[in-house]
Amino acid sequence: MTSANHLSLETLRQTLIRQEETLIFAFIERAQFKQNQPCYTPGAMEALSGNQSMLDFFMLKTEELHALSRRYISPEEHAFNTALPKPLLPAFEWTAPIVQNTINSNDEIKRYYLDVIISKICQPGDCGNYGSSVTCDIICLQALSKRIHYGKFVAEAKFLAEPEAYTDLIQRKDTAGIMNQLVNKEVEHRVLKRVWNKASAYGRDPDFNDAAPKVLPDVIADIYQYFIIPLTCKVEVEYLLQRLD
Amino acid sequence: MTSANHLSLETLRQTLIRQEETLIFAFIERAQFKQNQPCYTPGAMEALSGNQSMLDFFMLKTEELHALSRRYISPEEHAFNTALPKPLLPAFEWTAPIVQNTINSNDEIKRYYLDVIISKICQPGDCGNYGSSVTCDIICLQALSKRIHYGKFVAEAKFLAEPEAYTDLIQRKDTAGIMNQLVNKEVEHRVLKRVWNKASAYGRDPDFNDAAPKVLPDVIADIYQYFIIPLTCKVEVEYLLQRLD
Repeated sequence: MTSANHLSLETLRQTLIRQEETLIFAFIERAQFKQNQPCYTPGAMEALSGNQSMLDFFMLKTEELHALSRRYISPEEHAFNTALPKPLLPAFEWTAPIVQNTINSNDEIKRYYLDVIISKICQPGDCGNYGSSVTCDIICLQALSKRIHYGKFVAEAKFLAEPEAYTDLIQRKDTAGIMNQLVNKEVEHRVLKRVWNKASAYGRDPDFNDAAPKVLPDVIADIYQYFIIPLTCKVEVEYLLQRLD
Repeated sequence: MTSANHLSLETLRQTLIRQEETLIFAFIERAQFKQNQPCYTPGAMEALSGNQSMLDFFMLKTEELHALSRRYISPEEHAFNTALPKPLLPAFEWTAPIVQNTINSNDEIKRYYLDVIISKICQPGDCGNYGSSVTCDIICLQALSKRIHYGKFVAEAKFLAEPEAYTDLIQRKDTAGIMNQLVNKEVEHRVLKRVWNKASAYGRDPDFNDAAPKVLPDVIADIYQYFIIPLTCKVEVEYLLQRLD
């Protein structure tokens, strides 16, 4: 739970580091099952989900439930669906530490997950465990969404640390300049190394260290390098472009 | 997915070993949040769940969704609720490798989880992350239920390996004798050691090996020693007592 007085870059980094575990665990869990393409084909489970894919149907039902318990009033959370019920629980009391914005990259997240990630972490084919697969998919997608949209908090903290430099770049709509100001290649390198090490440790039985890991550490590091980190940067830039509105 | 020709003790053991990861990951995820007692108090979230506890409400809604996609027609799965909708998906084709039985230990599992496990794995207090806590609880409870009821498959495999000895004990309703025949202290010892090692490896950032683990390995080993293993044995005995009906 983030509030205004926790918006230090160090606290945010600790949160992002903890989210690595959540993501790696989620990928390892999904990797138990084959790719199970019918889960993602609209109409393939017509009796259950009509024209929707099974994943879309499960995601909608899950988000409807989570919306009732106020998940999506948190600035950390972003729904994959738009028409969701209003929360039945009273709003959590917090001071939103970021400004109002309209950024939601979930469509892009879902597309990459379906097009790339599933085929990288799961064996090809169909094992029939559709419900289990889709349940894992939702945990993966929600964890990716949370991790990537955390870029908004990171961007806000970076803005507050150097308001003049960012204000100038934002007013000139200098997207490349903002990106250049945000990126820290040394930090990125440390993230990739740490994620590789975690994937290696968590994907194995420690008593059988020479067994193949359940998901290759290279695959997890690649997902960070080619997808999570760049899309997080994109969210950071988009957020900053709206920062002064 | 288990089918008749996979009912070897070795295959079952591999499945149980894999389920250790699922359980340990689930406990580590839940441990991110405080105990959050209001989630378990009936009526504490009246606007959301009426007289039910928030956990019971989320579990019911989750099981209703999973029932539609045929989760509970699998002999591996046991619902925490009784009044659930019929599956909309056609039944998965398999030959049930165990006999019909009425065993469902979920009430006992839920009681132990709420009374003991949460307070062992989570910090005391209330962090307000109720939806996140309950979502993790459901994953923990479902994983515990699956692991413990797997005793039915183990019992069937043991029965098939020594049908005369078990038939005699079952016909004499010799519960203590059945238990004695089932138990293998050497295997149990190996399970506890392996679970401790996994909890130690998965609960830490491998780059900071001297940091405290997210859930103490002793806690996870104790949950196995004092709850999961004895309750699994109880399920095995109950199953065998119904085996010849």
